Amino acid sequence: MSKPGKDIKITEVCLRDGSHSVAHQFTEQQVRDVTRALDDAGMHYIEVSHGDGLGGSTIQYGRSLVNELKLIAAAVEEVKQSKIAVLLLPGIGTVHELKEASKCGAKLVRVATHVTEADVSAQHIHMARELGMEALGFLMMAHSAPVEKLVEQAKLMESYGAEAVYVTDSAGALLPHEVRERIRALRESLDIEVGFHGHNNLSVAVANTLAAIEEGATRIDGSVRCLGAGAGNTQTEVLLAVMERMGYDVGIDLYKMMDLSEEVVGPIIPGSQEIKKGSLALGYAGVYSSFLLHAERAGNKFGIDPRDILIELGKMKVVGGQEDMILDVAANLSKKQTVEA
Amino acid sequence: MSKPGKDIKITEVCLRDGSHSVAHQFTEQQVRDVTRALDDAGMHYIEVSHGDGLGGSTIQYGRSLVNELKLIAAAVEEVKQSKIAVLLLPGIGTVHELKEASKCGAKLVRVATHVTEADVSAQHIHMARELGMEALGFLMMAHSAPVEKLVEQAKLMESYGAEAVYVTDSAGALLPHEVRERIRALRESLDIEVGFHGHNNLSVAVANTLAAIEEGATRIDGSVRCLGAGAGNTQTEVLLAVMERMGYDVGIDLYKMMDLSEEVVGPIIPGSQEIKKGSLALGYAGVYSSFLLHAERAGNKFGIDPRDILIELGKMKVVGGQEDMILDVAANLSKKQTVEA
Repeated sequence: MSKPGKDIKITEVCLRDGSHSVAHQFTEQQVRDVTRALDDAGMHYIEVSHGDGLGGSTIQYGRSLVNELKLIAAAVEEVKQSKIAVLLLPGIGTVHELKEASKCGAKLVRVATHVTEADVSAQHIHMARELGMEALGFLMMAHSAPVEKLVEQAKLMESYGAEAVYVTDSAGALLPHEVRERIRALRESLDIEVGFHGHNNLSVAVANTLAAIEEGATRIDGSVRCLGAGAGNTQTEVLLAVMERMGYDVGIDLYKMMDLSEEVVGPIIPGSQEIKKGSLALGYAGVYSSFLLHAERAGNKFGIDPRDILIELGKMKVVGGQEDMILDVAANLSKKQTVEA
Repeated sequence: MSKPGKDIKITEVCLRDGSHSVAHQFTEQQVRDVTRALDDAGMHYIEVSHGDGLGGSTIQYGRSLVNELKLIAAAVEEVKQSKIAVLLLPGIGTVHELKEASKCGAKLVRVATHVTEADVSAQHIHMARELGMEALGFLMMAHSAPVEKLVEQAKLMESYGAEAVYVTDSAGALLPHEVRERIRALRESLDIEVGFHGHNNLSVAVANTLAAIEEGATRIDGSVRCLGAGAGNTQTEVLLAVMERMGYDVGIDLYKMMDLSEEVVGPIIPGSQEIKKGSLALGYAGVYSSFLLHAERAGNKFGIDPRDILIELGKMKVVGGQEDMILDVAANLSKKQTVEA
C-alpha cells in the first residue's frame, strides 16, 4: 500500500498572497526564479496574481509593479511539471481577466467570495470550465458564518461546477477544532474535494492545516516563509516537514523546498512575517486586515482602544466595503463607556 | 462557576530562553523594563537566568553582558505581584549558584536535566526546598525518549520533592498528538502538577501548548515575541489570545501583554524569530541547536547534506556533549553513499 498523501494537492501562494508582503512589487525575474525553483521541487500548483486577485492592481488595492498577465505568462514559461493557478474575486476581477489569464496559460482558478456570497461566483466558475480550466471555489472569512451557512454556500459553488471548495481562513481567526468541524461538515455534504487556506495570526496555521488534512481536505495552501497578508499563511516548507513526520507523502522534495525558502524567497522578502500586535488583534477579533488602520484612527478620535473596536466589528460580522461603520462603532463604544463611568 | 484556567500558571521565559536570541547581552535596564511591564500585566512567573541556566556565562555557552545575579536582583526589585524564577542545569550550575539566586530573591527554580538523566537533579531539588523555593523538574528533549521512560524519570523527580515536572520540547520536535500522549501519561502517573515548555521549530508550539492544557497541564511556558533558542518558544501573547478565545481565564491582561510585546520587547530584539532552514532542520531531526554548525562543517568535509547528518543524529538520540560523533556519522553516511552509487 502506498503512503497516505498521494491525493493531496498543494498550492503555493507566495506569489499571490505573498504579493501583499511586498506591496505587489514582484519583478518578473523574481517570479521566474521562484517559480522555477518551486517547479523543480515538484510543487503541484503555483498561484500567480495580484494579492487581491486578477484585476487587483488599482489605487484602492495597490498597484502592481508588473502587469500580472506578464507575470503569469512568465511563470508558465518556467514550469515543467507545476501548474499555474490564479485567484479571482468577482467584483475586483471579471471574466475578461479570467480569459486573459487562461490565454497566458493559467490552468486553474480559485473563484473567491465572502463566505455568505457564493452566488456571485456562478458565471466565473462556468466560464473557467468553458475555458477548460480547473475551477475551484474559495469561501473567504469562513470563521464568520455558522457551519450550516458555510455548507449551504459551498453547495452553491458545487452546483455551479466548482471541482473543490476551500474553507478560507482569511483573518487567521479559526482554531483547530473549528477547522475540523468545518471541513468535516463540507466533506459530509459535498461530492467534490474540500480544501483549506490558512493564515497564521493566532500561530495555529500549521495545526489548522493538519486538522483539515486529518478530516479529509485534499486541497491545501501554503506559502514559503509565511509570505502573505496579515501574519502570513501556513508556512509551506514547515507544513511539508510536519506532514513527512506524520507519514504523508505528497511527492514534493522537502530539502529543495527548504533550500528555495532560504536562497530564492529569503532574499526577496522585505521584512519577516512575525505575529505582531496588529496581526494578532486581527486574528483575535476575526476581521479583515484593511480594518486595522481605520480602527486605529477611530480609536484615537473617540478615545477607545482600537482592539475593542475590532472585536466589536468582528461580533457584528462587518465585511470589506463597510469601513464607514467603524466610526459608528467607535462612537457607540465611547458613549457606552461614558454611561458606565 | 468560575471560568477554567484559574489553576494554570504561566512562566514567561523571554528573559531566560530569550537570552539566546540576544547572545546573552541583556542590559540591566532592559531586564527591569521587561519585568516591570510583565508584572503590571499580571504575569505569574518571570524566569531570569543565562540562556543555559545559572552559571551558563562561560566561553562555551556564551558570556553574559551582565552578571545574572545582578539581573535577578534587579528583576526582584521591579515586581509587585509576579515571582522571579530561575533555571538550573546541574553540571552547568551548582547548588552554590542556586543559593545565591535565592538570596537575590528568586522564589522558584526549574531544575533541568536530559530526559533520561533525572537522577542528577536530586540534590538541587532538595536544596531548593530547603531554601524555601518552589522546585520544579524540567525534562529536556522530551521527544527523544519513549513515554514510559519519561514517566519513570518524572517519578524520580517527584520522589526528590519536585512540585511539578515539565515536558520540555527543547528541539521543537514534538507534534500535538505526541504532546497529548506525554502529558496524559504523566498526569496518570504523578501526584504533582505537569507542565509544558514548547519551541516553535515546526510551527506548532501554540497548538502543542493547547494540547498540553487540554490534557491537564497547569504549568505553561511562553515567550513574548517567541524570543528563544531555535525558532523561539510558544509566543506568550498569542497563546493568551487563543486561550481567551477558548474560554480560559488565567488572570493576565491580554492587551497589556500585546502592548509590552510591541513597545518594550520589540525594540530590544535584534532579529525576528522566523522559522528558517536551520531551525526547521533541527525540529525535523529532533536534535540540539548546537549540532547545526558542526553538521554543516562535517557535511562540507564529507560531501553530505547536513540535514541527513542531523536526521541520523536524531535517530541515534545523540545528546549534547557528544558533538564528536558528528564527524563519525558524516563519514559513515559518506561511505554508505559510495557503496550505493
